[in-house]
Amino acid sequence: MRNALFITIEGPDGAGKSTQIANIEKYFQDKGMEYIVTREPGGTKIGEMIREIILDKNNAEMDDLTEAMLYAASRAQHVAQIIKPALEEGKVVICDRFIDSSIAYQGYGRGLGDAVLDINKYAVEGFMPDLTFVINIDPSFAKTRIKKGTEDRVELEADDFHKEVFRGYVELEKQFPERIKAIDGSKTKEDICKQIYDILDKYVVK
Amino acid sequence: MRNALFITIEGPDGAGKSTQIANIEKYFQDKGMEYIVTREPGGTKIGEMIREIILDKNNAEMDDLTEAMLYAASRAQHVAQIIKPALEEGKVVICDRFIDSSIAYQGYGRGLGDAVLDINKYAVEGFMPDLTFVINIDPSFAKTRIKKGTEDRVELEADDFHKEVFRGYVELEKQFPERIKAIDGSKTKEDICKQIYDILDKYVVK
Repeated sequence: MRNALFITIEGPDGAGKSTQIANIEKYFQDKGMEYIVTREPGGTKIGEMIREIILDKNNAEMDDLTEAMLYAASRAQHVAQIIKPALEEGKVVICDRFIDSSIAYQGYGRGLGDAVLDINKYAVEGFMPDLTFVINIDPSFAKTRIKKGTEDRVELEADDFHKEVFRGYVELEKQFPERIKAIDGSKTKEDICKQIYDILDKYVVK
Repeated sequence: MRNALFITIEGPDGAGKSTQIANIEKYFQDKGMEYIVTREPGGTKIGEMIREIILDKNNAEMDDLTEAMLYAASRAQHVAQIIKPALEEGKVVICDRFIDSSIAYQGYGRGLGDAVLDINKYAVEGFMPDLTFVINIDPSFAKTRIKKGTEDRVELEADDFHKEVFRGYVELEKQFPERIKAIDGSKTKEDICKQIYDILDKYVVK
């Protein structure tokens, strides 16, 4: 039963999270372990409805606290409906962004500080990730990887915002070294995959 | 400048809030005072988008915390975009439902308790109502006033839920007697209006 493992992948948009999520998926496939892949914001029908409001470019007037609370609302639904049941069934949960995104983007990027953690402690209901990969990548470089014209409301924020987000991730890495593993995102895809697999080997007994 | 007054109207659905809001509006019209009328959930474009998710009958799987956080998200936007600016301009704000609805419906009705206040203290940013009218009415009687087939997701909840909500309002009246004025909703519309006008006369100097 205790194959259950909750893994989250974090980092700036354009860090290459999707590629590495596919690699993590393959890792558990090869081990023959049951897993699910999910994402935030979204991951549920209600979460996807919330995601649309958050990322809609026409909602430029959105208050920072509203944004933080919408992310938390989506997360509460995601934990209750998807993450908690999957972990209770002994599955590996691989999640693209989770609570650390809120702390980096809203806590640091928007400057909301501890309010973000206070709100989110209710959303996660004690279901914190066991292992978090943060792909460290210079935000101005990451930006060049996002196709022009396809940016959402958050991606469209100024460079200063994205620098603060990155600083938030670095702070989180220092604060939770047991849980959060910093991955050097300036390396090749293959090297990044190897960094991740080496860490997974220590967490997965099978 | 200090005509600014933040008034909220609370009570079960079917208590007759809309009728009394029209009466309160008339009160300030007659005094020649500037006012706005607004409502929750909603009150802003983003808030109305959130309201749709909350009240959609197809979202029966909504987690209680998700619901509480969506209400809080809508409230944060409402305070930042509508309520705070209007009060700062010296206007009277008349709001159909506010934080007490969250405490009664999510704190008591859903049994979330203090989590609701914790989340909402960020949403209101210190903008608590100056005066709140709670129309006390037996929830089983209030129910008979809602047209069959037009009920939203919350109105469709079982009688026990609505009894707990009502108990929540009564507890709030006891806890905040300075701010919250209990109105006897079993009286005629005219009598209810008189109860409200008598209280307003004490708050409005003009």
